[in-house]
Amino acid sequence: MIGTPPRQGASRRGFLGAAAGTLGGAMLAGTAGATPPPLMHGPGLATEPFHGAHQSGITTPAQRHVYFVAFDIVTDKRSDVQDLLRRWSEDAARLTAGLPLAGADSADQAPVDSNEAAGLGPQRLTLTIGFGAGLFARDGVDRFGLAARRPEALIDLPRFNGDQLLPEKTGGDLCVQACADNAQVAMHAARHLARVGYGVVQPRWAQAGFGAGAKPGETPRNLMGFKDGTMNPDPRDPGAMAHHVWVGDEGGWMKGGSYLVARPIRIALEHWDRMKLGFQEQVVGRHKASGAPLGGMHEFEPMKLDATDADGNFIIPENSHARLGAPEINDGAQILRRAYSYDNGLAHIAERWPPWRQGMFMDAGLLFLAWQRDPRSGFVKIFENMAKFDMMNQFVTHIGSGLFACPPGARPGGFVGETLFAA
Amino acid sequence: MIGTPPRQGASRRGFLGAAAGTLGGAMLAGTAGATPPPLMHGPGLATEPFHGAHQSGITTPAQRHVYFVAFDIVTDKRSDVQDLLRRWSEDAARLTAGLPLAGADSADQAPVDSNEAAGLGPQRLTLTIGFGAGLFARDGVDRFGLAARRPEALIDLPRFNGDQLLPEKTGGDLCVQACADNAQVAMHAARHLARVGYGVVQPRWAQAGFGAGAKPGETPRNLMGFKDGTMNPDPRDPGAMAHHVWVGDEGGWMKGGSYLVARPIRIALEHWDRMKLGFQEQVVGRHKASGAPLGGMHEFEPMKLDATDADGNFIIPENSHARLGAPEINDGAQILRRAYSYDNGLAHIAERWPPWRQGMFMDAGLLFLAWQRDPRSGFVKIFENMAKFDMMNQFVTHIGSGLFACPPGARPGGFVGETLFAA
Repeated sequence: MIGTPPRQGASRRGFLGAAAGTLGGAMLAGTAGATPPPLMHGPGLATEPFHGAHQSGITTPAQRHVYFVAFDIVTDKRSDVQDLLRRWSEDAARLTAGLPLAGADSADQAPVDSNEAAGLGPQRLTLTIGFGAGLFARDGVDRFGLAARRPEALIDLPRFNGDQLLPEKTGGDLCVQACADNAQVAMHAARHLARVGYGVVQPRWAQAGFGAGAKPGETPRNLMGFKDGTMNPDPRDPGAMAHHVWVGDEGGWMKGGSYLVARPIRIALEHWDRMKLGFQEQVVGRHKASGAPLGGMHEFEPMKLDATDADGNFIIPENSHARLGAPEINDGAQILRRAYSYDNGLAHIAERWPPWRQGMFMDAGLLFLAWQRDPRSGFVKIFENMAKFDMMNQFVTHIGSGLFACPPGARPGGFVGETLFAA
Repeated sequence: MIGTPPRQGASRRGFLGAAAGTLGGAMLAGTAGATPPPLMHGPGLATEPFHGAHQSGITTPAQRHVYFVAFDIVTDKRSDVQDLLRRWSEDAARLTAGLPLAGADSADQAPVDSNEAAGLGPQRLTLTIGFGAGLFARDGVDRFGLAARRPEALIDLPRFNGDQLLPEKTGGDLCVQACADNAQVAMHAARHLARVGYGVVQPRWAQAGFGAGAKPGETPRNLMGFKDGTMNPDPRDPGAMAHHVWVGDEGGWMKGGSYLVARPIRIALEHWDRMKLGFQEQVVGRHKASGAPLGGMHEFEPMKLDATDADGNFIIPENSHARLGAPEINDGAQILRRAYSYDNGLAHIAERWPPWRQGMFMDAGLLFLAWQRDPRSGFVKIFENMAKFDMMNQFVTHIGSGLFACPPGARPGGFVGETLFAA
């Protein structure tokens, strides 16, 4: 046999060489190929840490692609769940570092690695794990002895005006957000975690998404053609993150974690595309090209919410998206959005709003992923008004929803969720 | 108003400057922003030609992303169709070159450009247009006076063993294949062509896809984890392309064109992932890590189809995918595959093969896009046997299908389809 499995403690360079060898060709028993392929190179090699005080994938600069998957837990044994979280954390630490998965292949077993990401590099992969309400109790049953530890902040989200939530895109006892700069790397990682979870968890819903790939420092555009994320708090500002994103001392085992609201939001792109430019800008409250607030010149200048035109009407309309989302209107509430677009081709859809048509439409929109310290003072606070009054609601439909408590990061040798299970 | 619309005849550099200005911020009536954003830079700037003897997107080195869409024609007027093809060709020439679309925005009209690709660059965008049988006649009606010009090679594909074609993923009177190195750029281009076709065409089915992003010169892996495309004829070999891909003198108005078979093929990834490595390699007929034929050492070495083991069994099994696809088995037939993976999240699926289960499964697989001079001696020739005998059929299901006659490339000032409509 050519090559040996990488061992803990090898140098980083050694690990990467072994990684390339394992995944690329030289290690499989009975497989030909005497020369290991060259080391990976280029931007695919960049990594994000897995271990730390916080999970990665939250304040990490957004990668190009996401694969989000929510799972139902199908076991009744607490140890199964804990073992899986440990396995997920171990494998996630390897995948995110570009290391081969533990174990050697043989012809008589299913491969350790499904292999479609072989040679592509870690691609800044992050794997972020979260807990839905069903981990703590389902149908009133405390399956895992965790019911008493359900955080108060892990509420059942209220029904918002306009919600059209499909059961097959809603909920989940666990979730994994896999982000990477390569779509196949993100999908591979999520698929691997699903695969090692057979018998313990079962995928419930999933959605792949992509970012625009704007240049560094530029705000990417979403499928409505507008810049999206201008108002985000700055993930590089620890104070802002401590205030708006990371759970503090109030959180017990969730301290250092964050709450994720995940919602696929379909956008009626065909409808939107026929709207006049001026109306689109009224709906958003910003100029389409520059991203500046209506009446303004530059993307990042403050919104003048009180400014009126000659007739006394607000220049940034009362029911515009930007106004309704502004911290000034929401007692200072802010959430950290890490939104991706999604695109599942076409689907048969009946519109509930004008033009009330049926047919094949783009099954595309926004995979809304928003992080916050507490959803009650974050997403719920902001979205309650928006769901009622936002002019944008003519064009968007929330078709799924999940709220997940994402624990603090794992320590080396530990696992995500240790603060919950170990206590 | 700041800036002026770009004009025909401006220099390329002028165009790009104007493009950045238009799309990026400075031109919209009533929109602020005195300084045009900087020119686009980096790899996003690379372009592929639109005009030429052949359409691009066929022998073009595969881009990272595809958005494929098939349309029904909803008009009965021949001139509507011809006008649309001219408009598509004009806009495609601009989009692929990174130029702004013709026309200036005003607040009182829908925007010329939906804008989500603003600033991202052309990203090697190609737009490839094809004609389905329905352009020539539908339900026996010669809607556009083109029935007599339907090429013999534009057959109705036979029903293949195992086909489970969904009507909503099958057929189409016209198609557009948009490929680019950025997902949002590919989708934007397809969406734009759909948008300018309102009232003439209506999207019938669509599928986004992604490539692995392998390093140049390496064969990418598909979602089964195997290298995919090793046996392709070399697109850089004009002789091979003339023989296998481009329609010759036999084709009349199709001379210089090519036939596209487009099929979304679902892969039962969860099932596949549980198979032993040795069995996976028997199914494919190749080693998973190296891509070498079974019994071989290197990806590109010839398959020894006659080699047997000590018991007299073929080393490359009789019903393996690689053997059944080999030119030696198919009277020399070869097709040029430009396959992408697709991933629509999860779907409710009932398996027709073992393990006969129902539930939520990955709605993912291969968007098979194969080019050939004549489908009768190309895809049909190769796939008839494969559909019956390929061991891989346990894991893959063809869920949609289209066959499209893709005409030769347009000349500058002309349009794709001119050879058909002008004669």
